[in-house]
Formats: sequence, structure tokens, C-alpha cells
Amino acid sequence: MYTDRRNFIKTGAVAASMFGLGAMTGAISACTGAPPKEEVPLRLSFQEGIPPGDNLNAKFDYMEELGIVGFEPNGRSRAGLLSVRVNEIQQALRGRNIQVSAICAGFQGWLIAEDEEQRKRCIETSKEIIAAGAELGAVGMILVPEFHHQKPSFPMPQSREVLIEHLKDLGEFAAKLNTTLILEPLNRRETWYLRLVADGAAMAKDSESPGISVMGDFWHMTWEETSDYGAFFSGGKYLKHVHVASRERRLMPGEDGEADNYIEGFRALKEMRYQHYVSFECGTRGERTETVPAAVRLLREQWAKA
Amino acid sequence: MYTDRRNFIKTGAVAASMFGLGAMTGAISACTGAPPKEEVPLRLSFQEGIPPGDNLNAKFDYMEELGIVGFEPNGRSRAGLLSVRVNEIQQALRGRNIQVSAICAGFQGWLIAEDEEQRKRCIETSKEIIAAGAELGAVGMILVPEFHHQKPSFPMPQSREVLIEHLKDLGEFAAKLNTTLILEPLNRRETWYLRLVADGAAMAKDSESPGISVMGDFWHMTWEETSDYGAFFSGGKYLKHVHVASRERRLMPGEDGEADNYIEGFRALKEMRYQHYVSFECGTRGERTETVPAAVRLLREQWAKA
Repeated sequence: MYTDRRNFIKTGAVAASMFGLGAMTGAISACTGAPPKEEVPLRLSFQEGIPPGDNLNAKFDYMEELGIVGFEPNGRSRAGLLSVRVNEIQQALRGRNIQVSAICAGFQGWLIAEDEEQRKRCIETSKEIIAAGAELGAVGMILVPEFHHQKPSFPMPQSREVLIEHLKDLGEFAAKLNTTLILEPLNRRETWYLRLVADGAAMAKDSESPGISVMGDFWHMTWEETSDYGAFFSGGKYLKHVHVASRERRLMPGEDGEADNYIEGFRALKEMRYQHYVSFECGTRGERTETVPAAVRLLREQWAKA
Repeated sequence: MYTDRRNFIKTGAVAASMFGLGAMTGAISACTGAPPKEEVPLRLSFQEGIPPGDNLNAKFDYMEELGIVGFEPNGRSRAGLLSVRVNEIQQALRGRNIQVSAICAGFQGWLIAEDEEQRKRCIETSKEIIAAGAELGAVGMILVPEFHHQKPSFPMPQSREVLIEHLKDLGEFAAKLNTTLILEPLNRRETWYLRLVADGAAMAKDSESPGISVMGDFWHMTWEETSDYGAFFSGGKYLKHVHVASRERRLMPGEDGEADNYIEGFRALKEMRYQHYVSFECGTRGERTETVPAAVRLLREQWAKA
């Protein structure tokens, strides 16, 4: 079924079908030009560790079988920053229906460090990774402004001023390359500085740069947000990436049973006509060849219900 | 027309009409038991300084003429804390279709002060005002955890721990009296500590007390939120009060022209079946007898469109 769906997309038949169905099911497309909510696709993405396989080609084969259309590499590997892997990834993606979704961090230092060297290091490594991500067509590179262990940082309000100043610079750099820097809110066990999608979106707004965006990670949101629906709507036009994991232990969606409900968040994404990826960032306690396809099935079911 | 509407409510005819209309217009009421979105009433409230009039009776007469159903007194006046005014306010409200909406602050000290005396002062004065508010049937007393000038405060994460501990205490106190303490997010010119409705809601959630709620103030939200709609949905079940003002100068809604658009926020309130008040907290640069009714008209028009 997933293979059929991919072929369907390739022939361009889906676009025609969408408009036909739009005309049948309601006035939404006629009013806004956007596809009806029911036809917003769930674009799933995997980080490199998610699919089984010894190398990129084996992993991508597996992903294509499952209909996974996005790949989220890390910004740093044993070989160095992402720039050294651009060619390898491009080769492995050639002819496939998979695109690079986002680049997961990889930068060094942090943006609100009191130590200027740490800020410089963050800016320089981020720019190198952002440039590599742009070559790969990524939506953006994920950045966390501060983790708990990164001290000393400027206190508020100076930290916010320093952050916005650096975001303007990084945002301009990213926008010129047609990509973005994606701010990631974490949960309080990792940082107090940025925990809410609304706050990340406010930072993006304050930066006044089309190169700054925000993401939501269902795992972190479980602990920090009162409403997945409200959080994504606060992300709004700045929301350009989503991470997903089970909601109690950060495993494959479904491994935590009833807790793994993403429907309200998915409903927001569909109503917002979200065009980007929902990307797996999680471990597993089961057999990967079972838990991964089960998670994909669960997310597709919940997306359909949302 | 407003008088007619009030009488309509008094006769109970509205309830019948609501269910009738619900049956005609869609399945929402059948599914959820909630009134259809179109029938959620806009319950407007005024702070004491909003209506013209030399005394409470004159002000309430004016409010009734406009169909204003809520009154938001300050928690402190020249006479002292609200407790000394309970009788006066009860007398003036007798036989009227106006109820006390919320109590606007009035407490002293602050909850995250390093100085224990300041924390105690905040807790004691808050409890006195909350108790007076409960006698008046208020939804709750509005509290701000910290203003810029209140230093030194505990840093994070201690400040959050201290805050939640005190909220548990105040929440238990309020809940026993069938009222709440309402956390108010401000904007960065007044505080960095609590600026987002989602964060206030998270504090209410963390307090695990039915006596802690949150509010949204369109004025502050203008500067801090990326989405009125997302912010109110993040408030969710914790959202128990709303303030309104014009969006550039904090005057009567409408005095800032096109900027004064509340429709997305109102749409969230209607979809959430918000049952509480939208209360005026603002000044005016015009003739109060003109700007106040114009503001009420504007809000009703936008509510109808939302």
C-alpha cells in the first residue's frame, strides 16, 4: 500500500485527486487555496539510528519500503561535521523518494555563553553545518540555545538580547542558503531556558529573520506543554519540524501504550496545513524490525483520525 | 437590544433556544454536550475605572445599560484590602445582572522573593483578598509572580520550585473557598518571569491544584505571543480570565484602529466553550461616554465573526 501511494505521488495523480476530493468534501480549498485538512500528508522522517541496516543504502531501502520520505542526519559524526558527509548522503539518496528533512544539531559551544569563545564556536560550527544542510536541501539545522551543563550563561534579559543578536546573524546566513536554523524547546531535565514551543516561536519572531524557525518534539512537549494543539498553533508559520517518540520512555511511538496519543497535535498540524516532517528521535526496547513498522502504522492511524 | 438579551437570559429561554439551534446547525452539541460554538456568550466585564460614574451605583447602572455582566474590582483600595469593601460591593450589586468576575491583584510582596518576609507578606495579603473575592463570588484573584523591580528573586530552577510550593498552598486555600488564584502573564517590559499563557498554564498544571488557574491579557499577548489562538488553547482548562485593551497603546479596544483585532483569540475562546469573562483593563484618550460603548460594540462584532 505504501509503495502504491509513492507511485501515486510520482505520477502526479494525487494532486488531481486532492482537488477533486476538495470539491466534493467542502469549501475549504475554495476559500483558502490550501488543500482540505483531510488531504494534508503525514511526511514521516527517520534519524539515522532508527531503521535497521548496516549502511545508508540498507537503511534507505528499508525506509522506502515503509514509505518514509524524510531523513534526519546528525550534524556531526565520527568523521567530523556534516560537511564531510554531503557527498555520501547525496549519493545514497539518488533516485529515491527520500529527502533530507532536518539536520539534528552537531554544533559546539552555545549561543548565550558568557565566554565569547563558546559563542564564536557555536556560530562557526553552526554555519558550517547549516551550509552542508542547505546543500542537502534540509529545512534547517536544529539548535538548542543552552543545556543545563553549559555554564555560565548570561542571565535574563541579557541572554535574550545576546540570543536574538546571534539569531539575526545565523538567520540571515541560513536564509541566503534557502534553509533555516530551527530552535528546539527541550524539557526541564535538559534546560530551563527554552521549554515551550510558544517561546521558541517568540524568539523566531523577535529575530525578524526568515531564516529562524522553531520545532516541537512530542517527547519534550509531554512534560512541558499543557496542550499539543495550542503549542503547535503557537508555533504557527515558524513551525518547520516535529520530533516524535513514545511519551513515557522516549521509545518508538506505541511502546508506551495508551500514553502514546498524538491526535490533538496531529489535528493542529492538519488544520495548519503543516508541510514539513514528523521525524523519529527515539530508542526502542523491542525488536527494531517490529517496533519501527508498528510505530509507523500507529502514527498513520492517528493522523487519519486527527 | 442588550436589555432584551438580558431579559431573555433571565427567562431561561436562551437555554431552550440554544439546544434548538444546536439541533438545527450541527452535531456539536449532540457529540459533546457543549453548546454549539455559535452560542457561546461573550461575557464582558469592566474594571472599576472603566465606566463613567462617581460611585458604584452610577457605574453599575451604566454597565447594565451596555449589557456588561462582570465587575472586576481591585484587591486593594485607599480603604485597604478588598475585605473592607465586600459589604459595599454586595449592596451595590444587589438585584443587578452583574457579578464579580475576578479580583485584580492588590497583594503585597512577591512569591519568588529571596526575602522570606516578602514571600510571607504576599501569601498573607493574597489569602485575605482571595477570601474576600470568594465572598463576592469571584472566579479568582489575579497574581503576578514577579515584576522587574522586585529583586532579589530566586534564580531558576529554585524560583520555580518555590513558586510551585506556594501555589500549592494558595491553591488549596482558594479551592476550599470555591475560587482560584489566577496567574497573569505580562510582557517583557514588566517581567521576564511569566510572559506566556502556555507557561502560566504549565505552572497551574505543575501546582496540581484546582485552585490555580491562568489568564490571558490581549495587551500583553500582543507583545509576547505569536498566536492568540494557540495561547488560549494552551491555557485550556486552566484559562479562567481574559483582559482586553487596544493593541498599541492599551486604550479602549478600537482606539488603535486596525491593530485592534481580537478575532483569532475570540475564535479560540468560542471553540473552547470558554465560560468566564473578558474584562476591560485599559485607559482612553477619548470621551469615555463614546469610547466605552464603541469598544463594547467592536468586541461584540468581532465575537460574532469569530
